[in-house]
Amino acid sequence: MTELRGPVRIVGTGLIGTSIGLALTRLGVVVELVDANPDYALMAERIGAGSRLVQIEPQLVVVAVPPDHVGEVVAEQLERTDAIVTDAASVKSKPLTDASRLTKDLSRYVGSHPMAGSERSGPLAARADLFDGATWAITPHETSSADAVALVRRLAEACGARTVELPVEDHDLAVARVSHLPQLMSSLAAGTLVDAPSSHLQLSGQGVRDVTRIAAGDPGLWTQIVSANSSALTGLLEQIRDELDRVLVALGKGESGDELTAVLARGVSGAVRVPGKHGTPHIDLVSVLVTIPDRPGQLARLFADAAESGANVEDLRIDHSPGRPAGEVELDVKPGSVDQLVEVLTERGWVVHR
Amino acid sequence: MTELRGPVRIVGTGLIGTSIGLALTRLGVVVELVDANPDYALMAERIGAGSRLVQIEPQLVVVAVPPDHVGEVVAEQLERTDAIVTDAASVKSKPLTDASRLTKDLSRYVGSHPMAGSERSGPLAARADLFDGATWAITPHETSSADAVALVRRLAEACGARTVELPVEDHDLAVARVSHLPQLMSSLAAGTLVDAPSSHLQLSGQGVRDVTRIAAGDPGLWTQIVSANSSALTGLLEQIRDELDRVLVALGKGESGDELTAVLARGVSGAVRVPGKHGTPHIDLVSVLVTIPDRPGQLARLFADAAESGANVEDLRIDHSPGRPAGEVELDVKPGSVDQLVEVLTERGWVVHR
Repeated sequence: MTELRGPVRIVGTGLIGTSIGLALTRLGVVVELVDANPDYALMAERIGAGSRLVQIEPQLVVVAVPPDHVGEVVAEQLERTDAIVTDAASVKSKPLTDASRLTKDLSRYVGSHPMAGSERSGPLAARADLFDGATWAITPHETSSADAVALVRRLAEACGARTVELPVEDHDLAVARVSHLPQLMSSLAAGTLVDAPSSHLQLSGQGVRDVTRIAAGDPGLWTQIVSANSSALTGLLEQIRDELDRVLVALGKGESGDELTAVLARGVSGAVRVPGKHGTPHIDLVSVLVTIPDRPGQLARLFADAAESGANVEDLRIDHSPGRPAGEVELDVKPGSVDQLVEVLTERGWVVHR
Repeated sequence: MTELRGPVRIVGTGLIGTSIGLALTRLGVVVELVDANPDYALMAERIGAGSRLVQIEPQLVVVAVPPDHVGEVVAEQLERTDAIVTDAASVKSKPLTDASRLTKDLSRYVGSHPMAGSERSGPLAARADLFDGATWAITPHETSSADAVALVRRLAEACGARTVELPVEDHDLAVARVSHLPQLMSSLAAGTLVDAPSSHLQLSGQGVRDVTRIAAGDPGLWTQIVSANSSALTGLLEQIRDELDRVLVALGKGESGDELTAVLARGVSGAVRVPGKHGTPHIDLVSVLVTIPDRPGQLARLFADAAESGANVEDLRIDHSPGRPAGEVELDVKPGSVDQLVEVLTERGWVVHR
């Protein structure tokens, strides 16, 4: 079995690179930190992610530079070292193609994609446990050696992640669907709010907040990600445009019923396929609504009471309706826990609705 | 000052109509319940929303039937009674136009839109406090009498709602932007997941979950809502289609940078305009991340500790990353509360990240 002995050279000490450094250092693996920006490497070193000067040749190189530069740095590291090389970019075809233009032998390279992140960026946002339990996609290409794949798997496991192995093209199509397309749809929906009078925005509810939340992401980074995955994304966007045209035609005819219902029903079928917590398919959870005064300590009291009922709160939402003097919390629990939960909460004076 | 004395006749005893009945009955107002489906009216009566037989002529009629029938029932009630008439439909132009075709004098009619709901429907999902603190739009048209507007305002206030008065056309454009367009974008995004292999869906994160959540809504109801607001919605959808075409052209050229960044940046500008909790603009809240074991009682312990620090948790999210053995809770608090919160939680053994 291939062992991760180190040293591991990390090129690019932003959020992802530095977090990998912290996770490996925690396990006693020697980590070398390299960044085009010397301040970044220094910061990463100061918080304990590794060392800027390591004299021993690396066993593994992790390339965690911005998406546009990944292929080039991968090729460079393959040429300069005898190490296994991986990267952490969120798109996998483009780095592979870029690297293959610059160097011949890619057998020591395996792409990977640790699927964790944060709205923050940079080394100071890094955390040793960023990848604990997260999904880490590993995408071997045709000439990747078995050793290389095994070592990258060890890396992901050392960081506490759950690995999913899939071909490069599948990976890119998957993230186009579950990440890049939702990002663009969110941005497009949010974009229509720019010109809205403030009085119109007063009518906003939780739906528009949910749909537009990720639109607040960094446009520069997302431009790189989306551009790098343009081929996988283009087909999906064309599909959306065709559906949109059907909706527009249906609305124009004034007899939009069936067409529109078909589009909406297809949305329902898609929505229920999105896995819930812990990667499991949607399980039937029951929502219990509880009214709470908007002041400190009420959530604490509520959760203490909920815990005493023995129910495990699987998920929860706080209702944000503008102007409510009292908030509302929706607790999702397994069906078997509901009766007991409602009984205990009601006993203790909470206003509860199922 | 116009007083709401009753009786109030409610036509349509679904979730909204029955909830209004419960709220008014709670205040001692006599409520008459009418529904084309006698079982619905009976259920509404049984849970205390009013009575199916009231001998006195109504002061106010609230039409809460499905969107497609609102105009017709409004006209009918105007002809049959001397009462002020309002409705509760989520689109306001179409009921007005429909009613104006069927009856001449619309001075006793004022449209309104209580902006509260639930994924559940029917009289049994009704609650007396459904509208507590919610927004209730009131949309007078040109010939609405001042008395009618005042009485509908009393109705909304009696139900505990915050009223917003705006013209019919403004209302419909506003909900097209903040409700109907996000709904369609969510449905379209979710629709692309129907054909996705399950292995691809394994890579789903919180983003796609948020964007597709509302796509699970009832296609039949949403078809009626969206169709009734087609004129306001068409312009916005055309705007989206044009942006989408720009994105597709940019991606096709392979030099998508600037165009794409413009679309994404516009999304950021729109996203930050969506009001947060309590209808206030986004205030700067600071997020504190806390790792919690996924078992009963941990949230209770966390919130108890948070409350003792004196911090009011303004919002929170639970991280759903597939497969994490420990969950993560993100607490949003005001900047002034952060230091104390982090100190107290850390002292008590929580793993906290800012």
